[in-house]
Amino acid sequence: MPDGRVHALYRVPAEPGEAQALARSIAIEQTVEVPEALLPPGSAPAALTGRIESVERDPEQPGCSRVGISYPEALAGDLFGLLNVAFGNVSMLRGVRLLDLSPPASLLASLRGPNHGVTGVRRRRGVFGRPLLATAVKPRGLPVRELAALAEAFARGGGDLIKDDQNLTDDFEAFRDRVFACAEAVDRGNQATGGQTLYLPHAGAPADRIERYVEFAAETGLPGVLVCPMLIGLDSMRSLAERYPLIFMAHPSLSGSFTHAGPGGVDPGVLLGTLFRLAGADISVFPDRGGRFRYPEAACRSITGKLRDPLGGLSRSWPAPAGGMALGEAPEVARRYGPDSVLLIGGALLTHPEGVEAGTRALVEALREEFPERAAEPAAPPRPAPARPRRLAFLGEGQWEGRTSSPYKDARDLAFRGVRRVELVGKFGERTRCDLRYFEVEPGGFTSLERHLHTHLVIGARGEGVLRLGDRDFPLRPLDVATVGPLETHQLSNPTGRPFGFFCVVDRDRDRPFRAAPADRRNVPAGASG
Amino acid sequence: MPDGRVHALYRVPAEPGEAQALARSIAIEQTVEVPEALLPPGSAPAALTGRIESVERDPEQPGCSRVGISYPEALAGDLFGLLNVAFGNVSMLRGVRLLDLSPPASLLASLRGPNHGVTGVRRRRGVFGRPLLATAVKPRGLPVRELAALAEAFARGGGDLIKDDQNLTDDFEAFRDRVFACAEAVDRGNQATGGQTLYLPHAGAPADRIERYVEFAAETGLPGVLVCPMLIGLDSMRSLAERYPLIFMAHPSLSGSFTHAGPGGVDPGVLLGTLFRLAGADISVFPDRGGRFRYPEAACRSITGKLRDPLGGLSRSWPAPAGGMALGEAPEVARRYGPDSVLLIGGALLTHPEGVEAGTRALVEALREEFPERAAEPAAPPRPAPARPRRLAFLGEGQWEGRTSSPYKDARDLAFRGVRRVELVGKFGERTRCDLRYFEVEPGGFTSLERHLHTHLVIGARGEGVLRLGDRDFPLRPLDVATVGPLETHQLSNPTGRPFGFFCVVDRDRDRPFRAAPADRRNVPAGASG
Repeated sequence: MPDGRVHALYRVPAEPGEAQALARSIAIEQTVEVPEALLPPGSAPAALTGRIESVERDPEQPGCSRVGISYPEALAGDLFGLLNVAFGNVSMLRGVRLLDLSPPASLLASLRGPNHGVTGVRRRRGVFGRPLLATAVKPRGLPVRELAALAEAFARGGGDLIKDDQNLTDDFEAFRDRVFACAEAVDRGNQATGGQTLYLPHAGAPADRIERYVEFAAETGLPGVLVCPMLIGLDSMRSLAERYPLIFMAHPSLSGSFTHAGPGGVDPGVLLGTLFRLAGADISVFPDRGGRFRYPEAACRSITGKLRDPLGGLSRSWPAPAGGMALGEAPEVARRYGPDSVLLIGGALLTHPEGVEAGTRALVEALREEFPERAAEPAAPPRPAPARPRRLAFLGEGQWEGRTSSPYKDARDLAFRGVRRVELVGKFGERTRCDLRYFEVEPGGFTSLERHLHTHLVIGARGEGVLRLGDRDFPLRPLDVATVGPLETHQLSNPTGRPFGFFCVVDRDRDRPFRAAPADRRNVPAGASG
Repeated sequence: MPDGRVHALYRVPAEPGEAQALARSIAIEQTVEVPEALLPPGSAPAALTGRIESVERDPEQPGCSRVGISYPEALAGDLFGLLNVAFGNVSMLRGVRLLDLSPPASLLASLRGPNHGVTGVRRRRGVFGRPLLATAVKPRGLPVRELAALAEAFARGGGDLIKDDQNLTDDFEAFRDRVFACAEAVDRGNQATGGQTLYLPHAGAPADRIERYVEFAAETGLPGVLVCPMLIGLDSMRSLAERYPLIFMAHPSLSGSFTHAGPGGVDPGVLLGTLFRLAGADISVFPDRGGRFRYPEAACRSITGKLRDPLGGLSRSWPAPAGGMALGEAPEVARRYGPDSVLLIGGALLTHPEGVEAGTRALVEALREEFPERAAEPAAPPRPAPARPRRLAFLGEGQWEGRTSSPYKDARDLAFRGVRRVELVGKFGERTRCDLRYFEVEPGGFTSLERHLHTHLVIGARGEGVLRLGDRDFPLRPLDVATVGPLETHQLSNPTGRPFGFFCVVDRDRDRPFRAAPADRRNVPAGASG
């Protein structure tokens, strides 16, 4: 059961006697990383460092021990911290393996986990009671129309889910064309069957581009995406899954370095089960015991268990055994993993002697024979945006239709006088990266004197006021444009007898303003000029 | 020498005869991942798949072979692709290790690599000829003023570089306060010595927050940051380093899973040398052969070599041996790594019997005895922003001071008539996430009928026009506000006899517009209303 600490279980290459000392050094290494003499006097060590919970002989590996250590939850306030504290420096200790990991209750409560999980994916597909059949759009190098034809055949055959191969990577405009084509093809197949085969394109792109790919899938009405968490960063998947309510199918590319390099590393269940699920994987793909990779049965069981076992309030995820499954093996694999699993069959299905459509139909039929299917009306895809006015008519006097004024600030720690705000764009479900607000300052009023990292973009709209930047004042009249740079002290005031109104554009995701700073290292950029 | 393909060298657990077949399957697995029968007819296999370059007995590991495979450069257009093609699925083949990796010339030409490298860091510090001494701000749990005092003592002692411990992770506002305090403290130390000790805070935060930390360091005028590439994602470091011209010091947290878990995984030189350097690490921290982790001498040599050897036109990076170095070992370590290395000594220096300041002074003196120092005036920190007007006065008639009009579009594939644009904010070095442009449409003119993923935010400024959204028209008058949603077909036109001008705010980083789409899956969101 999760409690207020991180619990990690390690295998260490030492008998229990020696393992005790190793455990002590891990408990320090992962937290304060200094000799104990340097710890702040009077602090309870367990509040700052790891605590040894157990040391016992490893029942499976002669000469090894299992060491349980718990860490303060403050070190695992997010996934970044959880990885760092559980295995950051420990990963460099030869032969130490992370066997199990239990996040603190506070982290579990703050993570959303899978957006859809087992039940949500079933609803979207409209199939209950049996495993799902999945395949891949490939190979790279085939013309787009042939890839799309393959996707259509799979949908016509009644397949459940088709994803891009993880080797399909394009620049955005090529991705857009290919995904449009495949989505259309699957739509045609769905119209023929009346079903809802799910198509998940591969969002595989550099760190600063990948969101565009995911956003495109969402805006095009696709049900989800394939991602490679170990290539894009586990926490990047978490961040994307929190912002886009899609099905996230996680591919294990590069994960073998963690799980299959040798006696060290991380248990496959911890990585492809617990951590992928925490990061929002609805479906976790991994090599089955057969096929090209021959993962150990224990690894497959560990992954499957961690995807399904209780984990805070998080939804259960789908195990998706893969990696070169032969057509005839499907029923046996299905029996082994049970109904709540996705069977991913790529090459064998694409080379089916009777063609992809007939092959898919036969495979789905074989699954139905093992597990009686209950079909349901597929859930409608989520609407892209709530109904909202697309144009806000200006009503005069600093008012817009559909928008009301609100107080200038909620925080009371910065002084200001006579300011009202109108939130125009950003708080109403728009997909902008920035917010547009209108502020109006009464005669004699002023906004708070403040600074922050994010930039302000200001456009004069009504009357005339003064913009203070550092120690300089600039008049601001209608349609004048100004920017306030990072960490630059600024204030807007109205010395006139008429209202002074201006638009302000800011980043959606921004830091809180502050007034006094410990150091005024760079208050007014040297380049500032009128 | 880099050429037009990716070159990877693997160790595989098989004698050369068997290794040949394994090599063939890797060459397919990492590229098209289908039976060869499915390859597009007429395509040259080497253009799509891996090519076996060499298979020979491994000189170091009995029963193993070394297999060289080259891949098409199209699969490694970026770091994401390089990792995927070189080791994505291969990582899951038990006992296969990536021993060497050479990116294609095209990728090397497109990556910036270290912003500063060996020479740039020396210039900023003002010390030539000898290794640099570094330490860490720690332990976590100490009050901010004590952490700052420690940083000040190190600077007063003439230390070269002080970084946050990788366990120092805070929310942004706490980070801001702590970093301000430590930066001030180091400034005081620098004023006392007349030198330029470099302070690098730890940018350790969730994926959707980390940029703020790096941006803060840049805007505060700090010389660089510490990052953990394997926690934030290797390509995330690359992306940050490209956008912020800081010194990036890379910490190996979690990297041991790749390099030290067993016979599989990745050679330490490939990960902590080649890949970290490609991703922009100016300094790469790794455990020395002594201390707590006892990395093999060969690993340390491999890392150091890959950081220094020619790699396209990329700067050389600093090896930073660390991991529990004793004070007395420093001269020997310095001799072993030579003058272009950073000696990172944490705990031993912080517990120095004569205190941190005196201990630092003694250590630097010891380094000077081994390597004669040439001091220089430290390079001035880069100015935060070029001189630019902060307020653009509106001149009437759709003109602003300091800005000129330009043609509406460069691309000629979309039809439009009688439109000019004024770039107001975004193209002049501002740190906004969005651009502000003004467009003016002549009587009878119109913008292109187009769609794109990014959102438009429109504010009427002059005259009156019409905004088409999907199949609906909205009037747009001065100070009316409108948004154009993702993939929504839109056009602005001027049916009046007077000029029609409007502001348009867009994301800085955005996709290209397109007109016709293969599928019009979601042209007009259902929620659209006036």
